[in-house]
Amino acid sequence: MIGASEDNEYYILTSPTVLPKASGFLWNEKMMIQLNCRGYATSQFMQPEPAKYSHAPNLEAKSFMQPEQPYYAHHPGRFVYVKDETNGRLFSAPYEPVRSLYDRYTFEVGKHRIVWNIEQDGVAVEMSLSLPKEDAIELWRIKVKNVSMSKRNISIYPYFTVGYMSWMNQSGEYNEALQAIVCSSITPYQKYKEYDKIKLLKDKTYLLADRKPYAWEASQEAFEGEGGLVRPSSIESETLGNGDARYEMPAAVLQYRMELEPGEESEYRFLFGPAKDEDEIAQIRRKYFMESNAVDVENGFEKAEWEYAEYVSEGQGCLEIRTPDADFDNFINHWLPRQMYYHGKTNRLTTDPQTRNYLQDHMGMSYINSRIARESFLTALSQQNADGGMPDGILLHEEAELKYINQVPHSDHNVWLPICISAYLDETNDYSLLDEKVPYADSEELATVAEHIDRAMHYLMRDRDERGLNYIHQGDWCDPMNMVGVRGKGVSGWLTIATAYAFNIWADICEAGGRMEAGQTFRLAAEETNAVVNRYLWDGEWYVRGITDDNVAFGVKEDKEGRIFINPQGWALLSGAADDERKEKLIRSVEEQLETPYGVEKLAPSYTAMREDVGRVTQKHPGTAENGAVYNHAAAFYIFGLYAAGEQQDNAYRLLRKMLPGPNHEDIVRRGQLPVFIPNYYRGAYRQFPRTAGRSSHLFNTGTTAWVYRCLIDGLFGLQGSPSGLQIKPQLPTEWQEASVKREFRGARLNIEMKRYAGVQMTEVYLNGELVESGVLERLQSGSEYEVLVKLPQQ
Amino acid sequence: MIGASEDNEYYILTSPTVLPKASGFLWNEKMMIQLNCRGYATSQFMQPEPAKYSHAPNLEAKSFMQPEQPYYAHHPGRFVYVKDETNGRLFSAPYEPVRSLYDRYTFEVGKHRIVWNIEQDGVAVEMSLSLPKEDAIELWRIKVKNVSMSKRNISIYPYFTVGYMSWMNQSGEYNEALQAIVCSSITPYQKYKEYDKIKLLKDKTYLLADRKPYAWEASQEAFEGEGGLVRPSSIESETLGNGDARYEMPAAVLQYRMELEPGEESEYRFLFGPAKDEDEIAQIRRKYFMESNAVDVENGFEKAEWEYAEYVSEGQGCLEIRTPDADFDNFINHWLPRQMYYHGKTNRLTTDPQTRNYLQDHMGMSYINSRIARESFLTALSQQNADGGMPDGILLHEEAELKYINQVPHSDHNVWLPICISAYLDETNDYSLLDEKVPYADSEELATVAEHIDRAMHYLMRDRDERGLNYIHQGDWCDPMNMVGVRGKGVSGWLTIATAYAFNIWADICEAGGRMEAGQTFRLAAEETNAVVNRYLWDGEWYVRGITDDNVAFGVKEDKEGRIFINPQGWALLSGAADDERKEKLIRSVEEQLETPYGVEKLAPSYTAMREDVGRVTQKHPGTAENGAVYNHAAAFYIFGLYAAGEQQDNAYRLLRKMLPGPNHEDIVRRGQLPVFIPNYYRGAYRQFPRTAGRSSHLFNTGTTAWVYRCLIDGLFGLQGSPSGLQIKPQLPTEWQEASVKREFRGARLNIEMKRYAGVQMTEVYLNGELVESGVLERLQSGSEYEVLVKLPQQ
Repeated sequence: MIGASEDNEYYILTSPTVLPKASGFLWNEKMMIQLNCRGYATSQFMQPEPAKYSHAPNLEAKSFMQPEQPYYAHHPGRFVYVKDETNGRLFSAPYEPVRSLYDRYTFEVGKHRIVWNIEQDGVAVEMSLSLPKEDAIELWRIKVKNVSMSKRNISIYPYFTVGYMSWMNQSGEYNEALQAIVCSSITPYQKYKEYDKIKLLKDKTYLLADRKPYAWEASQEAFEGEGGLVRPSSIESETLGNGDARYEMPAAVLQYRMELEPGEESEYRFLFGPAKDEDEIAQIRRKYFMESNAVDVENGFEKAEWEYAEYVSEGQGCLEIRTPDADFDNFINHWLPRQMYYHGKTNRLTTDPQTRNYLQDHMGMSYINSRIARESFLTALSQQNADGGMPDGILLHEEAELKYINQVPHSDHNVWLPICISAYLDETNDYSLLDEKVPYADSEELATVAEHIDRAMHYLMRDRDERGLNYIHQGDWCDPMNMVGVRGKGVSGWLTIATAYAFNIWADICEAGGRMEAGQTFRLAAEETNAVVNRYLWDGEWYVRGITDDNVAFGVKEDKEGRIFINPQGWALLSGAADDERKEKLIRSVEEQLETPYGVEKLAPSYTAMREDVGRVTQKHPGTAENGAVYNHAAAFYIFGLYAAGEQQDNAYRLLRKMLPGPNHEDIVRRGQLPVFIPNYYRGAYRQFPRTAGRSSHLFNTGTTAWVYRCLIDGLFGLQGSPSGLQIKPQLPTEWQEASVKREFRGARLNIEMKRYAGVQMTEVYLNGELVESGVLERLQSGSEYEVLVKLPQQ
Repeated sequence: MIGASEDNEYYILTSPTVLPKASGFLWNEKMMIQLNCRGYATSQFMQPEPAKYSHAPNLEAKSFMQPEQPYYAHHPGRFVYVKDETNGRLFSAPYEPVRSLYDRYTFEVGKHRIVWNIEQDGVAVEMSLSLPKEDAIELWRIKVKNVSMSKRNISIYPYFTVGYMSWMNQSGEYNEALQAIVCSSITPYQKYKEYDKIKLLKDKTYLLADRKPYAWEASQEAFEGEGGLVRPSSIESETLGNGDARYEMPAAVLQYRMELEPGEESEYRFLFGPAKDEDEIAQIRRKYFMESNAVDVENGFEKAEWEYAEYVSEGQGCLEIRTPDADFDNFINHWLPRQMYYHGKTNRLTTDPQTRNYLQDHMGMSYINSRIARESFLTALSQQNADGGMPDGILLHEEAELKYINQVPHSDHNVWLPICISAYLDETNDYSLLDEKVPYADSEELATVAEHIDRAMHYLMRDRDERGLNYIHQGDWCDPMNMVGVRGKGVSGWLTIATAYAFNIWADICEAGGRMEAGQTFRLAAEETNAVVNRYLWDGEWYVRGITDDNVAFGVKEDKEGRIFINPQGWALLSGAADDERKEKLIRSVEEQLETPYGVEKLAPSYTAMREDVGRVTQKHPGTAENGAVYNHAAAFYIFGLYAAGEQQDNAYRLLRKMLPGPNHEDIVRRGQLPVFIPNYYRGAYRQFPRTAGRSSHLFNTGTTAWVYRCLIDGLFGLQGSPSGLQIKPQLPTEWQEASVKREFRGARLNIEMKRYAGVQMTEVYLNGELVESGVLERLQSGSEYEVLVKLPQQ
């Protein structure tokens, strides 16, 4: 049912019913669209806040992106009805709304194009979507081919949902001059001052055709009649009603009639998207549908498709791998960097990304386009307060404001600064970043990046109780336990451990940058913190998650629910808190209590009811009816911790592999995950609710991607940068006998062969045939290519 | 297709397809449900803010009630699938989701019960809904009868939609002990302080059965499978899957299998609604399904149905009419007081009704239950500020706050006080109300009601420009033109006229209450205001609507759009501003420019684009793609003004009749309005968009009802109370030769015959056979019954 195509750039699904929620997504600078294999679509564009041009048929709440959104008959989508005019037979592509059993069906998710191929009763339909690089426009091609032996009389009806645009005003009509259905609305407002903003919004939705339709319909109700979506009444007639919508719910439906000889094909192109007014639509028409007579100038539509392919292909990672695991290779080479690139380019389509997300997304961007990463780190630091505190979200637009969860103060944002920037420094060796001068949000004073981060670290050192444990306040990362510390006393186990890790990382960077004294300060702080962690937070077999305002430790062995959390364990492997004995114990505890066939759960056993001294950890991340999802972001840190601990390569690889969707992961794939992105979670509570465990959230916004990539660079393939060069220290799974990696590094290209040899005792690194004792490749020249052989011991 | 049933208490529809949006509604102290003839349902309950227990399948915006909401395949509803187990044939009642063509179909909207009767393939299904008086629970009966000649094997599947309850947590399962599907959710929150409120919410939805089901399904997706709602896959099997929902979208589906002999009937009863927890559901089970052996004690379910019928029947008006227009009689006798009663009892299911709505709804309640009206007026006045200004909304719950449009200051609230209270005084003669002492919102000071209203009137006198025209600020009534006066200069033509009317009314009341000096003050103020109105606001053929901040008059003959507005015209007939010549001119202008087959438009020609010096009048009340609906509330005032003007009885009756939905009003009925309520608008823009003009909003919240009733009391039947008694002064349409009216008045019952006699020159009133020269029936005794004959001249 599922297989990688030859060029490894597509994943193909061959039945719409087996994986009913399989989807792919495309994005550009202004928009994102997630297309479900059945034809349902979720799309947003920025103006500057996220907005819709294809709506649900009722008033939808404005909200952040939701996981596991249910689909339903009238869900927004892009469909084509195909009618045989001779016998009246009807089917629709793709699958919905008619739900025929096709003769042939494929859904191909490519990097820059999503394509359906459908064949029914001798008629083949190909639908494909691409985007332009910058405009918020969908570029659709619909090809119809007679694959039967006789002449056919066919009508096709592209039906693009517009939906309930507004209670204030909505309408739709066919505009002859534009050759488009144009649907209009007014964004509701109540206070007159809001009007100045809303009058600038792109409140129209259009479906623009490259050729004149035979007929059209702009009213949803008139289109459907009593037949409903399964067999719309207006399609029963020879011609659509050419109707308009006047405060009725609009739809964009066109009819094209054609006679096709055997083998004959006809292609139609459409633009679908939001616009301010008819003038803008006219401009779009000119830009994309203006044909040129010059032989070497392609029309705007094709040019835009080509430019978009280019744009997406710019999102290359710095690794190209060939291992014994072909599916792993395919995912790592193609899809993982694409997902990281999406994060770095779109900032999750929000104008106020959470600070921790923004920093981690640009950590990922360090491997793709370090210039963008650098600018983003500076943007984030310019919004730091002079007391060292980072804000809850980074404002990316002059009209942006902190929304939703960003209005709740979280205590962890500072720790991410050195952690994320260290990856950038490893990759680029651009220590000049630390000397850049940046203002504070609440002060004109300019200070170097190093000074900014010093203050962030000191802020964390101050924000502690008398024991030296970090206050949690109204929440920290990943488990927003908003009631642990609301009275100002409760502390976070994870955050305290994380500060130790951050101090150590920052000490490394200070020392590498020649600030030895500062380095010593932070190294000492890390040691003291780790000591405190072991004194107050070690529960005998694992680290506790926190201690409430009432001094009740939780995430401890006495707890019936929420007994063990993954985050304190993974980070204790990183911070230096855990000695060998503790490492062994906590790794065993995680394996016994948190590992499932779908990965490592965030906590277990899942909470089944609210614990009022802890808070909403029991409801967030609804991977199950209760909590405890396989939260991939947290799992990635644990894996990163395993690599840091050493000698855990098989453990680490096994968990990494469970996180990645793919053809070999039947448990996951069967539940509806096409392997083009890592979702933010798989459902957990495996031991409590096995039926639904492992299901995907279908949400591709997640900090996981950058950390998985870093696991590969720093861990599995051991190709981490350092001030002196590239350190080679692979931790291949023992079952792998060899692997080859192409690594782009500071402009140099390294062709690296890793292989196990009998008799080799420890890793030996050869650069262009010469042994490098240190394992660190120094003085690599940008623009040069190197052959590297890595001899590994057999196991 | 539509007809009144014998007892005139039901309206019956006999096809679900002719009027696809026909609906009825029920309410009680805690909830409201609007049932569409096809089975779709919109229901809300108060806790204390409006909430849902049957949701759309996607995240719905929290909003006030919207007009003309679109229905769609997965819209919330109450359905029963019926399967013949022998041949697998399937249909659903009522109509949706299967949409069979039935052998027989009726949809009966009763006052306290809504009933479907459906027959298909020899199986008859009766579904009926009632409510208890106080609990937020739906009481359903489903009867299945074999009306064929052979034994039948039937399965029925009540499918009650639960939908997308929450992104935070949702689940559903069958609870054996409760014999119920119980669906659970958690209202999303982000700030920890919100949790204290949300944890008290009734976040569960249950479907509780009076007998054990054969099987069940609690997952929407498992229920539907690939068959979808039209033919759910799980129904194809012999038995439902007995499945649960774990963060999946829940549904409540039960299966009952039965063998029915010819003529045999089986009845099932269900409770559907929201609950806090399982304990509450268990209590509900005991209360409604506990059977008693005592012969004279009915079970709770039947008792609740009976009590609800009693409750609804308490909402009697004070008129019972018999006229040559039977449909008019039926509507006025049964449905109009029911709609008024709903308003007075529920306050539109909001905790912050707009002040003007609250006052008018209780003006209506004066005719039904004057005690409630009295209390409500006192409540409203206790929220007045000491400077005389009334707030934008009246807070009815300790946690209530001003929401939506109530956050925008409107300038008209004060005028409604004397206008609405005058009807209460006419009806009750309870002038003691004026001496009640009430505090202010911003002062402990107690002042009499008279003093409160004095201050309200003085406030209006002060809130004027140098010409003496009333500022509009950010809006007034009915056309929230929020940009006319934002700079503090623009004035409202209507509001200035309305103040004159209010001053006159208040002067009358002051004088009737013996405050002659105050009366003189307000009388003078009214005269001065009317003079100013005629100086600045008369446009030659009608009164202008307002003058903007930039001193531009609008609603004037030079305007291409928004040339004439109804409100200044109707109120000028009431305020005394218009002399006979002006009356004639403005009445002609309204007839020529605003009257349509569906009533009088609010303004014409409809705006087709924003006029930025006027504001959102162009988008509000989306009766058309633009503005200009037949806004019944405004139309009712104009009719009231016609009666006040005198000699307009035919004009007035014609417009009144256009407003009322009914079997004779094919233009309206054909567009989907069952005649059980007056909607807040019919679509307008008749001259611009005739196709959609006349459609109903399907929204039954409207101040129209009280004013229509008052038009009948004060105008058409001329049976208005006064300090000295009941003044008889009918204005029957000339075509009526007679009419009889039963009038409840201050405890007395009057049987009034009105009849035209040859030779009668002017109205003659006979009380128990004796001529009453003044036409005022004085000294009527509470508890007594009187025969009244009114002789009218022939015309």
